[in-house]
Amino acid sequence: MIVSSSLQFKTVVGEMVDLTDRVRKAVEKSRVRNGTVVVFVPGATGAVTTIEFEPGLVRDMGEALERLAPRDLDYSHNLRWGDGNGHSHVRAAFLGPSLTVPIVEGALTLGTWQQIVFLELDNRPRDRRVVLQVMGE
Amino acid sequence: MIVSSSLQFKTVVGEMVDLTDRVRKAVEKSRVRNGTVVVFVPGATGAVTTIEFEPGLVRDMGEALERLAPRDLDYSHNLRWGDGNGHSHVRAAFLGPSLTVPIVEGALTLGTWQQIVFLELDNRPRDRRVVLQVMGE
Amino acid sequence: MIVSSSLQFKTVVGEMVDLTDRVRKAVEKSRVRNGTVVVFVPGATGAVTTIEFEPGLVRDMGEALERLAPRDLDYSHNLRWGDGNGHSHVRAAFLGPSLTVPIVEGALTLGTWQQIVFLELDNRPRDRRVVLQVMGE
Repeated sequence: MIVSSSLQFKTVVGEMVDLTDRVRKAVEKSRVRNGTVVVFVPGATGAVTTIEFEPGLVRDMGEALERLAPRDLDYSHNLRWGDGNGHSHVRAAFLGPSLTVPIVEGALTLGTWQQIVFLELDNRPRDRRVVLQVMGE
Repeated sequence: MIVSSSLQFKTVVGEMVDLTDRVRKAVEKSRVRNGTVVVFVPGATGAVTTIEFEPGLVRDMGEALERLAPRDLDYSHNLRWGDGNGHSHVRAAFLGPSLTVPIVEGALTLGTWQQIVFLELDNRPRDRRVVLQVMGE
Repeated sequence: MIVSSSLQFKTVVGEMVDLTDRVRKAVEKSRVRNGTVVVFVPGATGAVTTIEFEPGLVRDMGEALERLAPRDLDYSHNLRWGDGNGHSHVRAAFLGPSLTVPIVEGALTLGTWQQIVFLELDNRPRDRRVVLQVMGE
């Protein structure tokens, strides 16, 4: 069985969005009991990963991203295209657009304090879509 | 065919654990000849990736993680929760909890000097479980 | 259906190779209409991710990788093995060897400005092979 769906939501700059419940519901609706769900971001200035979703870590992740790819460097991307989001692209390429979570006996195999999150890395609010591909039996 | 299993092991702080042989055995036992294996960490202070598993790189990875998310910063996570492992969460979110490796004609498509590793990023020893989801035919 | 194939190409140091069209062709050839494609690098000094493929970001990614794992540090890997590519291994372990992209109604679910790229992180030109595993129906 292969069941495709997508999540849609609006974001603000620097937002981390907890997708866990919505992914869980899509898996339940698919009736796949054993398999995987791929969570995929179409677009090059957002990313998915897992983290304990709490306000402290939202701030801590923002500061680590700023150390890796500071907003105010002279990015070649900005010099060419003028959209000012060179740091967004670099951060997204590091975190990656794709996450695969096993489904075992109907449940995601996440830890208790582990949430699936979307990170808005762009420098403006966005309408986002995340693709969910559930595969299994 | 979908075959779920898990690996269990104890870790010490900063440990890198070579999972390659155990993943290979799980794939052989599954009798899947062509497909994929997903290696997934339930929990938000550990990660999986691939690397040449040798003591020099264990140290080098530790130093790069310290540059990205130094242990002794004032993490908002630590101020709120007092468990002192803000750096662990940030590091794990960057490396990611999930790895997918193709299986072709019964073999993992790893390079000769490429091992599948678990990184213990927490600030205390842990009992760890890693989920393996083998899918294919 | 499971269809394995691979892409082969030569690289130069620091090169970013746009694989998008070749992955798209492999998916079309597989006749899989719904499922996933796993893009996997066998080897520990290359990586795959997605990014807007344009020369400015190639340079910006190179500079971010240099901040994370500078070429000229005293890597323990180099002291042991003398091949001078400790930074390559560390960078590759952070970016990761594996990317999974959904296929929905015959198309990759990439964004308009999002390309699948291979990053050559080694310190010498290489002959590279990337494995594509298409799974679905």
